[in-house]
Amino acid sequence: MPAGQITGTSEDEQMHDRLKIKKQLLEHEKISYATDVIELPKGGIDCSEGCNPYGFPRECAEVVKNFDTSRLGPYPHSQALYDAIIKYWKSQCFVERDNILLTDGSINALYVINNMFDTHNAMVLGISPQFTDYYMHAEMLGIEYAPYQLKRIHNYKFDSYEFMSMHYIAKTYVNASEQEKLYNFIYIDNPNNPTGQVIDIADIEKIVSKALKNDITVIIDEAYGEFMPKRNSAIRLCEKYPNLVVVRTLSKGFGLAGMRVGYIIACKELIHCMNKMVNPYMVGELSREVAAEALRHHEFITKSKKAFAGMKKEIRKELGCTKHNPEGASGRLHMAETLDTNSLLLLYHDDKNINLKDEFFNRGVLVIDGYDFKGLDSTAARVRLPKKREFPKLLKAIREINKL
Amino acid sequence: MPAGQITGTSEDEQMHDRLKIKKQLLEHEKISYATDVIELPKGGIDCSEGCNPYGFPRECAEVVKNFDTSRLGPYPHSQALYDAIIKYWKSQCFVERDNILLTDGSINALYVINNMFDTHNAMVLGISPQFTDYYMHAEMLGIEYAPYQLKRIHNYKFDSYEFMSMHYIAKTYVNASEQEKLYNFIYIDNPNNPTGQVIDIADIEKIVSKALKNDITVIIDEAYGEFMPKRNSAIRLCEKYPNLVVVRTLSKGFGLAGMRVGYIIACKELIHCMNKMVNPYMVGELSREVAAEALRHHEFITKSKKAFAGMKKEIRKELGCTKHNPEGASGRLHMAETLDTNSLLLLYHDDKNINLKDEFFNRGVLVIDGYDFKGLDSTAARVRLPKKREFPKLLKAIREINKL
Repeated sequence: MPAGQITGTSEDEQMHDRLKIKKQLLEHEKISYATDVIELPKGGIDCSEGCNPYGFPRECAEVVKNFDTSRLGPYPHSQALYDAIIKYWKSQCFVERDNILLTDGSINALYVINNMFDTHNAMVLGISPQFTDYYMHAEMLGIEYAPYQLKRIHNYKFDSYEFMSMHYIAKTYVNASEQEKLYNFIYIDNPNNPTGQVIDIADIEKIVSKALKNDITVIIDEAYGEFMPKRNSAIRLCEKYPNLVVVRTLSKGFGLAGMRVGYIIACKELIHCMNKMVNPYMVGELSREVAAEALRHHEFITKSKKAFAGMKKEIRKELGCTKHNPEGASGRLHMAETLDTNSLLLLYHDDKNINLKDEFFNRGVLVIDGYDFKGLDSTAARVRLPKKREFPKLLKAIREINKL
Repeated sequence: MPAGQITGTSEDEQMHDRLKIKKQLLEHEKISYATDVIELPKGGIDCSEGCNPYGFPRECAEVVKNFDTSRLGPYPHSQALYDAIIKYWKSQCFVERDNILLTDGSINALYVINNMFDTHNAMVLGISPQFTDYYMHAEMLGIEYAPYQLKRIHNYKFDSYEFMSMHYIAKTYVNASEQEKLYNFIYIDNPNNPTGQVIDIADIEKIVSKALKNDITVIIDEAYGEFMPKRNSAIRLCEKYPNLVVVRTLSKGFGLAGMRVGYIIACKELIHCMNKMVNPYMVGELSREVAAEALRHHEFITKSKKAFAGMKKEIRKELGCTKHNPEGASGRLHMAETLDTNSLLLLYHDDKNINLKDEFFNRGVLVIDGYDFKGLDSTAARVRLPKKREFPKLLKAIREINKL
């Protein structure tokens, strides 16, 4: 049979318009930096993927090597990961099996959560920039994404007072315009992706509390949560707020992106709702065992955090970041508000015509183009810190680009 | 903190009604036989889970043992599974990388597909009984499930002429009632779960062709597809029909349920649409390698099929199945229309008050209650054939129940 015939003819394309497919799926193009084919600059380093450059706790490799492979035949039945999650959070709060939904990475957790909501006239309040694939999915479902914009003049620092006001104002405005559109839910990634900054748990609680009064669900995506103190996790608030959903993954801090493990923590009623849309097999048998082992060795993260903090200190020095000029004043490159122990940071440049990703690429460093985030453009780029031995290459590139 | 506080109070429950969650998620209970906790009768055998009792090709275990575990750190980038799928289908049809979407088992494939459709006034035509989790998910999304009912008096045999007529009649009826509801899509599992019967590819093509004329997408779920001849796969029709989506999994025939690997084959335009709702990491790095290895050793399935055919022959003998009484006439237990090489079969009993699952359970055999399938009740049960050495226990139970 001739090659490529499954491609479809233009007649087929017209055909697809007639199928009862969501119109946004047919019409909108997706923006995403997620790809399973990475093209590194020659001899260069990868500072693009959100995984942990230091890998994962070494004990996880032992679990793979010693795994009884006959367990790959039946559907996943291991309860080890539920137990490990409960134990992991024990010092902070009381989590039970029925508060947990295991998911294929945190991205699939977000898909499940978005699908919980009635999409008719739905609107989600987010923060811009934030995790692109999240709001893309919401939009593909027909949910309107209305973000609060972080501002370059404020070094992209989140202002919870402003956020809550905006939320309130927007609600009033929408009512006034007779559209009767209300926020169905709020999505916050904490730590924020791409800046790496963290919202304090006290501010998160204020937002969740206010949302509760307005019958709004709040989703806190803690994909990079291992890089902030455990006590700052919104999981601690799940006991108190029935409108709160928290997402975690083993892909970032624990460095197991290839294993596809994430989980949702929420009150039992919400987990029960989500269970109606999924089956209990989203995470494979071996992945459950490996992830459980990782959670038992969280001291691993402490080392990663220390390494990242050391590197960010050097970047701050290079960019001339001070108390009065936190964004850096030694040249034309700046670092957005960030938490030093986090692997992520956002850089932005004064030259309006620069393509920051290309500048890094030409210096052997692969980063994520700011263009791939709503509210940013190509004068910004997301950097995920590399291993210490690769750091000099990144620092050299930063030094040079700072002078452009 | 007090135990169980995350449970939520009755006040919380009222609260959840006010959140903008899909009302069907709050109101409808889910029926599903999928569970990650299996309770076997003491000393008994499992004939419930849809996995392959013979496990998987032994070469897969080698892949796990020899896997370079450093590959678990980054996001999945292996292209091995795409290549293996293309090669697996080469003898039947031309599949390209852009015709493939990798999914976390076939169940997640179905979730992605259901989400493609506009749910407003949506209706899906199915066959009853069929895979429960499929239509449950559709209903939870607010899609109306309107199945064609297989009849006990016809030994649950599918009649494609009747199916196509019903489809036409239903469409007319719906227009007449001024609801303007049309089938958005058709869902057929082939082989059928729970009966294990197969619809001939010629009949499938007639359905897809008619659906194309009516702008309707057809989903063919070939989860148990490895147990029918490869030439009967609807994947062969994807070249010709832009309204066709075929789902496959490595969980059944290839026996890798614990690894969570499935895939969708469709024309590039439809795959492109689906890609807008997922990210490219749904199947983990090791799972991709193990699944690719399995596809290279499909001779493994031939042995499983032979074993199942042998067992079904003995069951037919026991039940007195003949050409004129295909359902069996030796007693009160009967076997629905089925393909002998398939691991699945449906048994049903003349006694209207019997609980067939319980009868098997009391004889040390765990099966799936017919009640868990739409259109059946507890006088029926789904049996997944066990290993040959466990078969005598099943056959003995069948013999005894046949006489009840």
